[in-house]
Amino acid sequence: MARATQGLLTAEPHLVEQVITDDARINLLAEKCEEHACSMLALQSPVARDLRTVVTAIKAAEKIERMGDLAKHVATTARMRYPTPAVPATLVDQFAEMARCGVAVCEHLGQVIAAPTGGDFRALAGADDRVDALHREVLDAVGLADPPYPIQVAVDVALLARYYERFADQAVSVAKRLDYVVAGTMPDEPPT
Amino acid sequence: MARATQGLLTAEPHLVEQVITDDARINLLAEKCEEHACSMLALQSPVARDLRTVVTAIKAAEKIERMGDLAKHVATTARMRYPTPAVPATLVDQFAEMARCGVAVCEHLGQVIAAPTGGDFRALAGADDRVDALHREVLDAVGLADPPYPIQVAVDVALLARYYERFADQAVSVAKRLDYVVAGTMPDEPPT
Repeated sequence: MARATQGLLTAEPHLVEQVITDDARINLLAEKCEEHACSMLALQSPVARDLRTVVTAIKAAEKIERMGDLAKHVATTARMRYPTPAVPATLVDQFAEMARCGVAVCEHLGQVIAAPTGGDFRALAGADDRVDALHREVLDAVGLADPPYPIQVAVDVALLARYYERFADQAVSVAKRLDYVVAGTMPDEPPT
Repeated sequence: MARATQGLLTAEPHLVEQVITDDARINLLAEKCEEHACSMLALQSPVARDLRTVVTAIKAAEKIERMGDLAKHVATTARMRYPTPAVPATLVDQFAEMARCGVAVCEHLGQVIAAPTGGDFRALAGADDRVDALHREVLDAVGLADPPYPIQVAVDVALLARYYERFADQAVSVAKRLDYVVAGTMPDEPPT
């Protein structure tokens, strides 16, 4: 998503192509992850925390795969409009911040996946709230702009903002699952 | 989604409220489904087809829960614009057909979940292709309309079309999983 955003906001086509290639790799990795998890279920009959870990791996792999799709959607939108930037200069800051929040959650997730500690869900939900606020801000800016943005720009921006919002949602949802692995109970839903 | 669409296209607020209530119920049911599946994994250590069925239940519950969210998004968009219809008269037919395709896949899914037979994935992928084509048609209509739609209408329509597209995607993805339960191997990806 970091690379897709750089491609989107600077209209650099080579970054965009890399994202599209990487998405295919993420899809394969997610599939392997699920296969491996199912083998463990079949062969080792895990229980308690081990079982929660394996079920979480199955669900997290799918969510992370979906996050790759969303980054690809950002990349393909950038490519479709190239060499015109898909995001107007007036909204670049909001998109850059949505990306930063989403990517920060991902980086944190990477650490928590490697060394599950639990209790991180609430901190990450704060980043998700910020992305939700920026998402609304972008939609309001599009609805109220005077003179209005061209229709194509308005539509692109609305869809792009949604991709970022979903990306952060999925990342936080993985974090919530990781909390569940450690605690055995699901944390409360983030405010929506 | 049938009810959300009726609410969207006829601007009848009581239908919309029902969808929002039902979404909360779907969320609870999905949670119970996962809990039950995890109990089965822990207590019965299923293997082979039984294991595939339980893992499929976990993944399908999440996808169906997500489909409820998408129907709720349609409903809340209708409510936000009430009493103005969110979809302009010129695009009502496309939305009605997207809804019909998505709902037909769901009804079929209901039957296949009750009595898994496999091999239905390819037939359902056809409905998904039709929704994808309508999705593109709506986006093109919005991009090319002359005189242009008001910005708010264009943005609503683009997001709504995406909700229907995702709804059908998820439904077909559940169908694919059900094929997997029966066959033990995943069917090929639908063309994207």
